[in-house]
Amino acid sequence: MTNKTLIEEMKARVFAANLALPDAGLVKLTWGNVSEINREAGVIVIKPSGIPYNVMRVQDMVVTDLSGKLLEEGGLRPSSDLATHVELYKAFKEMNSVVHTHSKNAVTWAQAGREIPAYGTTHADTFYGVVPCTRQLTAAEVASAYELETGKVIVETFIDSGIDPLAVPGVLVYGHGPFTWGTTPQKAVENSVVLDEIAEMACVTEVVNTRVLPIPQYLLDKHFFRKHGINAYYGQK
Amino acid sequence: MTNKTLIEEMKARVFAANLALPDAGLVKLTWGNVSEINREAGVIVIKPSGIPYNVMRVQDMVVTDLSGKLLEEGGLRPSSDLATHVELYKAFKEMNSVVHTHSKNAVTWAQAGREIPAYGTTHADTFYGVVPCTRQLTAAEVASAYELETGKVIVETFIDSGIDPLAVPGVLVYGHGPFTWGTTPQKAVENSVVLDEIAEMACVTEVVNTRVLPIPQYLLDKHFFRKHGINAYYGQK
Amino acid sequence: MTNKTLIEEMKARVFAANLALPDAGLVKLTWGNVSEINREAGVIVIKPSGIPYNVMRVQDMVVTDLSGKLLEEGGLRPSSDLATHVELYKAFKEMNSVVHTHSKNAVTWAQAGREIPAYGTTHADTFYGVVPCTRQLTAAEVASAYELETGKVIVETFIDSGIDPLAVPGVLVYGHGPFTWGTTPQKAVENSVVLDEIAEMACVTEVVNTRVLPIPQYLLDKHFFRKHGINAYYGQK
Amino acid sequence: MTNKTLIEEMKARVFAANLALPDAGLVKLTWGNVSEINREAGVIVIKPSGIPYNVMRVQDMVVTDLSGKLLEEGGLRPSSDLATHVELYKAFKEMNSVVHTHSKNAVTWAQAGREIPAYGTTHADTFYGVVPCTRQLTAAEVASAYELETGKVIVETFIDSGIDPLAVPGVLVYGHGPFTWGTTPQKAVENSVVLDEIAEMACVTEVVNTRVLPIPQYLLDKHFFRKHGINAYYGQK
Repeated sequence: MTNKTLIEEMKARVFAANLALPDAGLVKLTWGNVSEINREAGVIVIKPSGIPYNVMRVQDMVVTDLSGKLLEEGGLRPSSDLATHVELYKAFKEMNSVVHTHSKNAVTWAQAGREIPAYGTTHADTFYGVVPCTRQLTAAEVASAYELETGKVIVETFIDSGIDPLAVPGVLVYGHGPFTWGTTPQKAVENSVVLDEIAEMACVTEVVNTRVLPIPQYLLDKHFFRKHGINAYYGQK
Repeated sequence: MTNKTLIEEMKARVFAANLALPDAGLVKLTWGNVSEINREAGVIVIKPSGIPYNVMRVQDMVVTDLSGKLLEEGGLRPSSDLATHVELYKAFKEMNSVVHTHSKNAVTWAQAGREIPAYGTTHADTFYGVVPCTRQLTAAEVASAYELETGKVIVETFIDSGIDPLAVPGVLVYGHGPFTWGTTPQKAVENSVVLDEIAEMACVTEVVNTRVLPIPQYLLDKHFFRKHGINAYYGQK
Repeated sequence: MTNKTLIEEMKARVFAANLALPDAGLVKLTWGNVSEINREAGVIVIKPSGIPYNVMRVQDMVVTDLSGKLLEEGGLRPSSDLATHVELYKAFKEMNSVVHTHSKNAVTWAQAGREIPAYGTTHADTFYGVVPCTRQLTAAEVASAYELETGKVIVETFIDSGIDPLAVPGVLVYGHGPFTWGTTPQKAVENSVVLDEIAEMACVTEVVNTRVLPIPQYLLDKHFFRKHGINAYYGQK
Repeated sequence: MTNKTLIEEMKARVFAANLALPDAGLVKLTWGNVSEINREAGVIVIKPSGIPYNVMRVQDMVVTDLSGKLLEEGGLRPSSDLATHVELYKAFKEMNSVVHTHSKNAVTWAQAGREIPAYGTTHADTFYGVVPCTRQLTAAEVASAYELETGKVIVETFIDSGIDPLAVPGVLVYGHGPFTWGTTPQKAVENSVVLDEIAEMACVTEVVNTRVLPIPQYLLDKHFFRKHGINAYYGQK
């Protein structure tokens, strides 16, 4: 496949994934962005900044190199969150797509500064344990290179906690909102859908039972590995 | 009717009932599954595992015998929850269809580990008393035959509590989510719709009045038997 | 106008108003019913019992006399709540249409057994003061003539509290749900829309401020009489 | 451009913005209104009072002078909130459009009588600090010139608090609901969308963490000025 064909295909996937966000009720106005990386071809494709979804076209997707430098002349400005995406791709080699939204329920946990406990199997089917929340960025971090530091604090959160970002494909940035990722843009979007759903479920669960406990580890194991890894038996072969 | 015609008709009903779940807002992604049993013909028809609703076809429905063994060569894998359905059909001879969802509000009560009290006539019209929540499965149960044991713990819940599964056509599996049933797939889906609705109503009712009490038995009797049994007078003859 | 033409027009209005309920998100399945009365012609037209909205036809509307006795041979059974409607029409001569739903938010206040306080002008624009909640029906009342007694306890609630049913065109029946009314089926449906909206707003308002107080009487007066009565100036002449 | 062409264009924008409100789920029935001002031409265009959205036509928009006096003979009555719009335009010379809704979540904060704290970057992207809530109007203010006084109390709220209405393009009127504004009707509507969204997020955030704190000033600065002012870098050039 030529590089040009490959980029066209990436643009098509990234475009479709971006449109899937308002369709799923996860973004309003121009909020949210999806990117895809191809490390071998050395390109990242990402949503342009601030373009309304109803006028955005597939050719508006922005192409950069692996450091986030624009590769196409005359193209639009990339999402202002590009540097966060780049930082995540550098740190986590297995993720090929990153999604950022301000989806309502995930945002409320990010604003509350709390990790989301694994209260049920809906959570366990996609996230193998708590969905972590980063620490708050410092004034110096925000002032220097905000979007880059947002990426760094996400990476730090996974390293410090020992959580595997492939087993927990999402995070809450303190006071901000969720990022999710996956092997494809579609998978990364699905993880955003699930994250918002379990965020709402977890909140209401605590209203229904103020002393609720997370599910036991053996049930978390069962559901996650029913869907992931070599012993998975959910879905078709 | 030949067995083949009968199976085609079951597939059509099961397919339609599965599609009704996302239409009713009860499932996201590939969550949820509906099955139908015909004990005389010795067949169960159930949704295939992990197929997106927008590409799923009527011929993709999976046919098994009464023990859950596949009857059609080259068919898709059945829902991973098949063993739970089989167990329920074995124990409760009057139910012809089972539905499982991760509908948001019913899940929150399952995650909270609480039965849903009968706070009003919306509840009483369909569920004759509390909608029970199972105990938590043990590590041994989850490790040995998870889906089968899920069915067993549901049956145990009804036997131990003395609740009649025909009068209360639904249950919450602890930390997981709801199962409902009925005489037809359509009826079983309707019971899932009602269960999610009353789950949300019950939660908000407790917010509006933290000391709310269930409705009295005579009102529960009145509304349930207005719609069910030989003295029912709701609907057309 | 002949009586036949008049009834056809009533059927059209009652049919449209019934369909407006699921469109407005106020009813699921076959819940909810609308009726209209014409006292001079001596007829009530009401929704048939238990017919799904998507197959219900205008000619299925049921015609009764002012006491609820069926006037058309071969017609469908009327809504099981007919006796409640009849009782309200008997007591309140100025209402020409009654609506009953199990709309989610209004039901939660009915289940909570609480009247809805007037927390804002959205409430005051339609309801001149608290929306009352009836007392609970006794076992004897439920056993004898449930739907009739439901009407009676609504009437009792307005008489005992001194609330004017024209100024507060709705009520919550304890443990059950809302009834609203108006001069036309469309107006009565609109009052159901408003009642559910203010029920949700009131609940969330109490979450945001656990010590919230109702708006002062002068603001209630201003907003209600801006829209109602001889000094109203909202809308077109 | 002739004055007539200018007014036609204003009507088109105001009409479209009014229709955008129910589309965005911000208004029910005939609630809500949008206006636009052109100070040089000396005209305000505003929604007519009480016309259902589905029958409202572009030519129904009402044209007034800068004091709110009708300019077109035979036109419809203007929104009953016109005097509030006029008062805001007089006080704040940089706003060209005002929007009023009874959107559910913003109303709950207005009814609760609380300003909305800046709990996250979704808030900070549009509102540079708390969204204030006015004091309650006095009986005398409500009795004398209610809609005018509503405008005055909004102006007073910004003056007394020192909040810049361009940096915080919205307010909650105590016991009533939100007003937002902007340089165009579209922008003013977008601000209503954001205000309702952050109102809901803030409420749920407090449920998830009862001791949540607002985001630090440096994060508020970063996000607001990423999108506004001479150093903004969000969106396209």
